[in-house]
Amino acid sequence: MSKLVIVGTVAFDAIETPFGKTDKILGGAATFIGLAASHFDINAAAVSIVGDDFPQEYLDLLSERHIDTTGIEIIENGKTFFWSGRYHNDMNTRDTLVTELNTLADFKPVVPEDYKDAEVVMLGNLHPIVQSSVLDQMSKKPKLAILDTMNYWMDCALDDLINVIKRIDVITINDEEARQLTGEYSLLVAAKKIQEMGPQYVVIKKGEHGALLFHEDQVFYAPALPLKEVFDPTGAGDTFAGGFAGYLAKTNDYSFENMKNAVIYGSTLASFCVEKFGTERMQNLTSEEVHKRLLQFKQLTQFDIELG
Amino acid sequence: MSKLVIVGTVAFDAIETPFGKTDKILGGAATFIGLAASHFDINAAAVSIVGDDFPQEYLDLLSERHIDTTGIEIIENGKTFFWSGRYHNDMNTRDTLVTELNTLADFKPVVPEDYKDAEVVMLGNLHPIVQSSVLDQMSKKPKLAILDTMNYWMDCALDDLINVIKRIDVITINDEEARQLTGEYSLLVAAKKIQEMGPQYVVIKKGEHGALLFHEDQVFYAPALPLKEVFDPTGAGDTFAGGFAGYLAKTNDYSFENMKNAVIYGSTLASFCVEKFGTERMQNLTSEEVHKRLLQFKQLTQFDIELG
Repeated sequence: MSKLVIVGTVAFDAIETPFGKTDKILGGAATFIGLAASHFDINAAAVSIVGDDFPQEYLDLLSERHIDTTGIEIIENGKTFFWSGRYHNDMNTRDTLVTELNTLADFKPVVPEDYKDAEVVMLGNLHPIVQSSVLDQMSKKPKLAILDTMNYWMDCALDDLINVIKRIDVITINDEEARQLTGEYSLLVAAKKIQEMGPQYVVIKKGEHGALLFHEDQVFYAPALPLKEVFDPTGAGDTFAGGFAGYLAKTNDYSFENMKNAVIYGSTLASFCVEKFGTERMQNLTSEEVHKRLLQFKQLTQFDIELG
Repeated sequence: MSKLVIVGTVAFDAIETPFGKTDKILGGAATFIGLAASHFDINAAAVSIVGDDFPQEYLDLLSERHIDTTGIEIIENGKTFFWSGRYHNDMNTRDTLVTELNTLADFKPVVPEDYKDAEVVMLGNLHPIVQSSVLDQMSKKPKLAILDTMNYWMDCALDDLINVIKRIDVITINDEEARQLTGEYSLLVAAKKIQEMGPQYVVIKKGEHGALLFHEDQVFYAPALPLKEVFDPTGAGDTFAGGFAGYLAKTNDYSFENMKNAVIYGSTLASFCVEKFGTERMQNLTSEEVHKRLLQFKQLTQFDIELG
């Protein structure tokens, strides 16, 4: 059974959308990635940091879904990373209201001994130096290292970001970030430039417009499932990444053709994530529900033109 | 062989994009629809109006592609409809600089006798009363009536628009227009509301993000082919409609499954249209080129997840 190392925040989120607002609820990239990856028959471990204000029941929630949490350090008298944001009416843009780094400010991830030979490493959005330090700890080169990042690091740690991008196989990034990183408007040209920076595979996330996968001269485009309403987009990108990484770890097939399937799994899982606040929808998502929605995705995208 | 009636403008366009600008060149909805539909083995006729300032060579260009132009009325001492626009840097938005209706102001389309029993009617963007008058002339109910429209008619002739929408089978509309027409942000909900207004099938065009097809509770999403650059988006929507209508007329199969293929043909042809100014790319497009790009579309969208 393949191993997956997940590195990222485990956090408190407070979210406002046009549909309502929450108090501090469970959030964080590693949380969403872990919940998504738990749908695959793999060994997965989360590496993160929290304060002792973090409820044990939240950690149990991951353990119950077979995510190894021994790599989540708990700092005595420390406070857990807290993020608060407000979404605009279109749900595509948001303002950050509060960012309290707290224990995350001194996060030095330690990969559990058992996971140093993991086949897949999923580096959630963090300072690129922290992401790089995880790769340094691996006892052998992973079959696939996947990195998620955001515009914030392009603004304030570009050189470090470029250094870690050199070391990974797949980058997941949204359309605006791909344009910012390369100065190119065309996503086709932007993806090509990013490939020249290191990763052989580039995934560009376009929210309600789906996701694109690029490799050499090949492109795959998975649309997003049209939804009646997007209730809360928080965590959708991480859920996509968790589904993508989890599926690849399970199948242990890192070809472009199989990566298409991984994109579909990621999109499918993300389509659930946005239906409720925070992790609520993901906590009890069943494999029957996932299977049913994968069939919907097939109907949504597959056609049968006969070409000679 | 099925018959297709195409009603719409045949016009002069002057276009400015970040890549350059043109003098008055060949344009108009019926022109783009006709050039796209000419890729299918059908009988097609264009119904329109021009002034005697309109060059014979432009009409020949349609005839050479087997589009019957006897329904294009030429007004002595009249001037041809002229539109001029400037695209913004993102190529998704544009300003109209000039609209001279000229002969179009008194356009009373006359469907050629031979085409009054056509299987498919494609109503390009025009005043909804003009579109309705075409349906009145048909000697039998077409198997498929397709209507394209735009926000302008929602602003200034909404009642007339609603009346013609009641009479058609398929509407093609862009995402912002679908939202304006229904007051709904979710395209899934908007499409449902439009279906309740009459048409069983709703196609929502999202430009670089592709096109959605809705019918009852079914949805199909064809992404747009990612391109190195979009040179001039003028006519892309009409080219899509022409490919859609032409494919359905040729196959004479109006099922949802076959309509998926029609969407793919429309998207494929539209992906060529934007590569050059105006109709330039469409004038000499070969079936080999179309075939090759259809294969690209398959690779872009088709995957192979095994589901029990």
